[in-house]
Order: sequence, then C-alpha cells, then structure tokens
Amino acid sequence: MGNSVKRLAVLGSTGSIGRQTLQVVRALSQHFRVVGLAAGRNLDLLAEQISEFRPGFVYHQAKKMPARLTTPEYELLSMEEIASHPQVDTVVIATSGNSGLPATLAAARAGKNIALANKESLVMAGEIITSEARQNGARILPVDSEHSAIWQCLEGETQPPAGLILTASGGPFRNHSPEQLEGVTPEQALKHPSWQMGEKVTIDSATLMNKGLEVIEAHWLFNTPIDNIRVIIHPQSIIHSMVEFQDGSIKAQMGYPDMRLPIQYALSYPKRLPNPELPRLDWTAIRELTFEQPDFETFPCPGLAIEAGKAGGTSPAVLCAADEVAVELFLSRAIRFTDIARLVRQALEEHEPVSRPALEEILSADAWARDRVLKLAGSGNP
Amino acid sequence: MGNSVKRLAVLGSTGSIGRQTLQVVRALSQHFRVVGLAAGRNLDLLAEQISEFRPGFVYHQAKKMPARLTTPEYELLSMEEIASHPQVDTVVIATSGNSGLPATLAAARAGKNIALANKESLVMAGEIITSEARQNGARILPVDSEHSAIWQCLEGETQPPAGLILTASGGPFRNHSPEQLEGVTPEQALKHPSWQMGEKVTIDSATLMNKGLEVIEAHWLFNTPIDNIRVIIHPQSIIHSMVEFQDGSIKAQMGYPDMRLPIQYALSYPKRLPNPELPRLDWTAIRELTFEQPDFETFPCPGLAIEAGKAGGTSPAVLCAADEVAVELFLSRAIRFTDIARLVRQALEEHEPVSRPALEEILSADAWARDRVLKLAGSGNP
Repeated sequence: MGNSVKRLAVLGSTGSIGRQTLQVVRALSQHFRVVGLAAGRNLDLLAEQISEFRPGFVYHQAKKMPARLTTPEYELLSMEEIASHPQVDTVVIATSGNSGLPATLAAARAGKNIALANKESLVMAGEIITSEARQNGARILPVDSEHSAIWQCLEGETQPPAGLILTASGGPFRNHSPEQLEGVTPEQALKHPSWQMGEKVTIDSATLMNKGLEVIEAHWLFNTPIDNIRVIIHPQSIIHSMVEFQDGSIKAQMGYPDMRLPIQYALSYPKRLPNPELPRLDWTAIRELTFEQPDFETFPCPGLAIEAGKAGGTSPAVLCAADEVAVELFLSRAIRFTDIARLVRQALEEHEPVSRPALEEILSADAWARDRVLKLAGSGNP
Repeated sequence: MGNSVKRLAVLGSTGSIGRQTLQVVRALSQHFRVVGLAAGRNLDLLAEQISEFRPGFVYHQAKKMPARLTTPEYELLSMEEIASHPQVDTVVIATSGNSGLPATLAAARAGKNIALANKESLVMAGEIITSEARQNGARILPVDSEHSAIWQCLEGETQPPAGLILTASGGPFRNHSPEQLEGVTPEQALKHPSWQMGEKVTIDSATLMNKGLEVIEAHWLFNTPIDNIRVIIHPQSIIHSMVEFQDGSIKAQMGYPDMRLPIQYALSYPKRLPNPELPRLDWTAIRELTFEQPDFETFPCPGLAIEAGKAGGTSPAVLCAADEVAVELFLSRAIRFTDIARLVRQALEEHEPVSRPALEEILSADAWARDRVLKLAGSGNP
C-alpha cells in the first residue's frame, strides 16, 4: 500500500465505532479516504456523513433518503456489494449483532483487509470466516481493544503464544451481590465506568457476556485453544490485554480506554501514525493498576460463552442470538438483568448443536434461538 | 542458527549474572554449549564450572589454578581472545565495572552475538561499540531486564519509538529523606527489595545511579534521544520497562524479577524456549501494580547520569569510573552513602570532556576519574 491513500468502506457508520472511525479518518485525512458508507436507520447522521465524505457507495435501510440527498452522487449498493467492491481496500465492520455476518463473509471472499469491530460475526461463524479469509488472502484486523492489544503484542513473535490474558473492567456492577443484580435497571447498566460504547456492548459488559464473546473471538483470531485464554478483572482499563509466551515472558498493551486507538491501528497497520487527537498515557497521574479474579458465579455469562465456545458448532450462534434478544428485552424492561443469563442458558440447554455447520445451519440456529428466547420471556417463565 | 546448538562464552562466569547464565544453560542443555569461561578471583567456583561444562577456553586472573585443575584440558586465553574466537557464537559479557570493555569491543569487531549484561561498556564507549558492531555485523542483545523488556516490545515494530519508559524499583530507600540517607549502612543498602544482584549494581540501585546508567545504555541500544527516555518508580518490579509508540500505544513487558528470563531471551533469540525452572506470573496473586515519580533531588545520581549522557564524549566514562570507586569506598565504609553522588558530581565538574573520544581517551578519562575520586575521598573533603 506504501504511502498511498487507503480506501475505506465503513459499515455501521452511524454507530459508536462507525462515528469514531470517521473521527480517525478526519484527523488523518491524508492517509484515508471513505469510499463506502452503510448505516441502518439513523438517516440524518448518514446524510451528514455522505455530505462530508462524499462516498461512491452507500447502503441504508430507508425507503427514501432525506430531501437534500435525493439527487445522489453515490451508487446505492448492498452491504455485501460494498464489502467486496474492487475500489475498497479496507472494510470496517462496525455493525452490531448478527447483521455484519454476510458483509464480513463477502469481504473475506474478496480478499479485503477486514477491520472487524463486530465480534458476533467471528463468534457465530469463526471457522467459516477464518477459513475463507485464509483461502482468499483476506486479513482480519481486530478492532476490539482487547484483540488489538493481543495483536500488537504478537507482532514480530514467531511462535504461538502460551496463553492470552483478556482484561475486563468488570463493568458497573463489579462488586454487586446476586441479590443486588436482580434489581438493576437499564439506566444503571448503561453507565459503564470506563468505556463509551454502543448499548448492546455496554449491557454485554455489565453481564460480562462481552468477555465471554471475546474469548471465542480471540480463539479464532489467534488460533489459540480456549483453555489457554483467561480473563482477569482490571477496573482501570489501562492494560487492554496481555500475551504470555513460551518462556513465561508477558507483553501487555496499554492506553487510555479510547476506541480510536485500536480503530486507527487496524486502519494504519502495519504503520503507526501520530494523531494529536489521541490521548497519551500520563504516567504522572497513574498511581496504580489493580487486578481481581472474575466471579463467574455471580456473573454466569462468560462461563456460558466459554462452554459454548468449547462445544463449538452452532452453539456460539445460539449464545449470540439468545444474548442479543435477551439484551433487547432487558433494555425494554420486559425482563430483569439476571434473566439475560438465565434465558441464554436455557436456549443453550435446549439447542441440539450441529457440528461444523454450513452458514445456513448457523443462521437457522440463530433464528431458532431468537424465537425461543422471545417465547421463553413471553411465557413469563424465563 | 536453526536448531543447532549455540556455543557460548561466559565472561564473568562466577558473578551473579554469570552463575544465572549457567543455570539457564543447565536447564536448556540441548540448546547451548559453554565453550569459554572467564572469571576474576573466585577460583574455586571457576574450577567447579570448568569441571561441569568442560570449556575449550578459559581466562582467569590467578597465578595458578587449584591443584585438581593443573592438568588443564582447556586453552588459557585472554578475555578478548575468547570473545572473538571463531568457535564462539554468542559472548555473554557479565563482568562488572569497566573490565568488560575490551572484550565487548573484541566481540563487536569479530561480529559476534553479544549478550551484554555489563552496562558500563555501553555507557563509557557507546558510540565506539555500536559503530563497531554495525560495521562488523555484530548484534548487541541486552541482558538488563529493562533493556530486554524494551527490546521485546520493539520486536516487529517498523518505526522508531516515540519514547522509552524505564521502570525502577526505587531501591531499599525509596521513601527516605535526605537526612535519613546520610546514615544508611552498606548492609542496609545491600538489601534490595526485589532483585538479587551483585554488590556494585545493588548499591547503584539504592542510589538510583543504576537507572541513570540504564538511560544512557538505552540511548545507545535503541538509538533513542535521551530526552525521549523517562524513568518511573514501580516498586513491585513486575513491569520491566515500556515503549511508547508514535500513535500513543504503549507496550510493556512483564515477569517476576528474575534475571534468568532476560538472560535466556538474549541467548535463545529469536526463539523463545520453554524453561520449567522460570517462574510464571501468577495473576491470582497480583493485586496491584503501583507507580510513582522519581525524586531526583533526594537521589541526585540519575540526574548526574542524564546530564553526563547528554554532554557525551568522555563524561559518561568519568561518571562510571567515579561511581565505581565511590561505591567501593562506601562498601568499605570510607565514605557515607550520600557521598557517592557528591564525589561523582565533583569529578564531573572538574573533568574537561573530550568529544568523540578515541578508546584511549575514554580509558584515560576513566583512570583520571578513579584517581580523582580516591584523592577527594582521602582528603576528607568529598
């Protein structure tokens, strides 16, 4: 790629990661050009982004765009068409939930650089995506801060790691008892102590499900057995994750909790670019970094995820789908916070997993789990 | 080198680093063979090491070896001859003070891998050694835990770092007042809170001179301006040092304070080897890592070193030599702990530095400083 400008497609451009991706592009406009944008229903923001970045390709879910953009200078394409378009170098997958999967697969098959912020894609279909990427010369560049940290620590190392250590802030309910957790509200769960993120991932951080999904994601990204991946609680969110090597040496990557750094690293890789807008760690202000063991009894979600990850097949898809629906139900006050784990567990227990599934089997397990969780919740017997 | 056995010469084999190097060789005997040993006056231990490792080349300072080794199966050579011998792949420079300099230069000129534990060589003659190494294809592999950490963090990075962050335990007198420091004894100063090391480096850790020497060493090893190298106090000695990159990302290397890991990394590089004798960080036991700013007023030595490093020329040699003599005087109770910094400062102030010095000028500055410190101390007016 040399010093040429990288052409980016940002899928999910109006979400939290999408907006921060565009902040990075704005700050480093000599290095990146946005050629594709895709968003769901936030048409006002999408229209602004189109005016500013003038992409050639757009996807949106609206019947029609706002009046001032009815004479489009862009081509309206599907997300898969944008993700695999010859004029795109790097596809940023910043959609949430399962909606990023088809575009991720299209980008893998087209041999793109895939800056992957959507962890559900890899959790649901890790085997298919990594195998398609390998066969077609696509490179998956993690955007999650934890996986970016591990990736940075592995750069230049020639042997597989002995283990991965994912750090977790512990979320807003770190020291809550099971009884206290029963009564927490969506407002409380949405107040994350260290990270600014979208709603789904913020609730997943509060249940620690997020960390479970990240274990499965790390397994696929770094070809590391799930038993060699552990989670520790690090409330300051300064160490973003660590790698232990065969000689016992550990490397960690650090920074303030700010998604723009891992986003930028995925875009600029293999280079690092100075960006005056990114905060620098101030070692005169950092007094201590603390660590605790996670409590998988009070917070059952990561344990469920790790079990599903080890079971493999369609189990992780069921985990993802059940969690996505349960989080929506919690946010709409249809269920309690602690019901999220109970519904996910029940869906996993009822599911008959298919091993080495085709994409259709994964999507069918996903659909089954969504339906099942809605029914379980509706029956008043979660 | 592939899977072949690396042939090592260990200079300073009876000292702390030398003994730990031989522990690593013992644990990984299928990877390393000791072909050369050099030691000062600890002939009993050297004789044991010769019996165990059966090197082809030996250097010692004794008039004769103990009786049981009077029929030597080895060749008696100078340290320079061992360091440059065609049968040696990697030279471990584990001598203390200025005695390692000629052998380091000989190894650099012979294009060897130089596992460098003797920081004085680089501090005194960094320009000459790095230039000789570059010209002759020698590779300097740092053994100091801090520099090994930085080296590990830089692996695979393609751009120069934005900054280096050296961690310091703070030594046994971390929270002492200047008045308390006046009265500390050699016994107190030799009790390091986290590291087991030789006497000279342990006293240098107590005065923090060690950290100043390491700043100069890092400057030469990593071609980084001294102004971009900072020191922070980290009493647990778990993070061994850090690198800040141009995008603000920071990488750190961690482990328990155990010199065998950086020694082994320098020997096994670019591979990492599993060694069951090396302790693994136990994240269930690590509760916190803390950080403080160093107090360069109460501990003036690092400031003196940084000044001497910036002045360059013969100043760092004077710093090293003055410190070495002052530490000996303190250990023999001829001066107080706080006199170490005062004597070093006075020698530096009186010295007329030579810029871009030849080796002879460095050695002559070294000799002048030793003599001057002895005189200053003897006059009762340090």
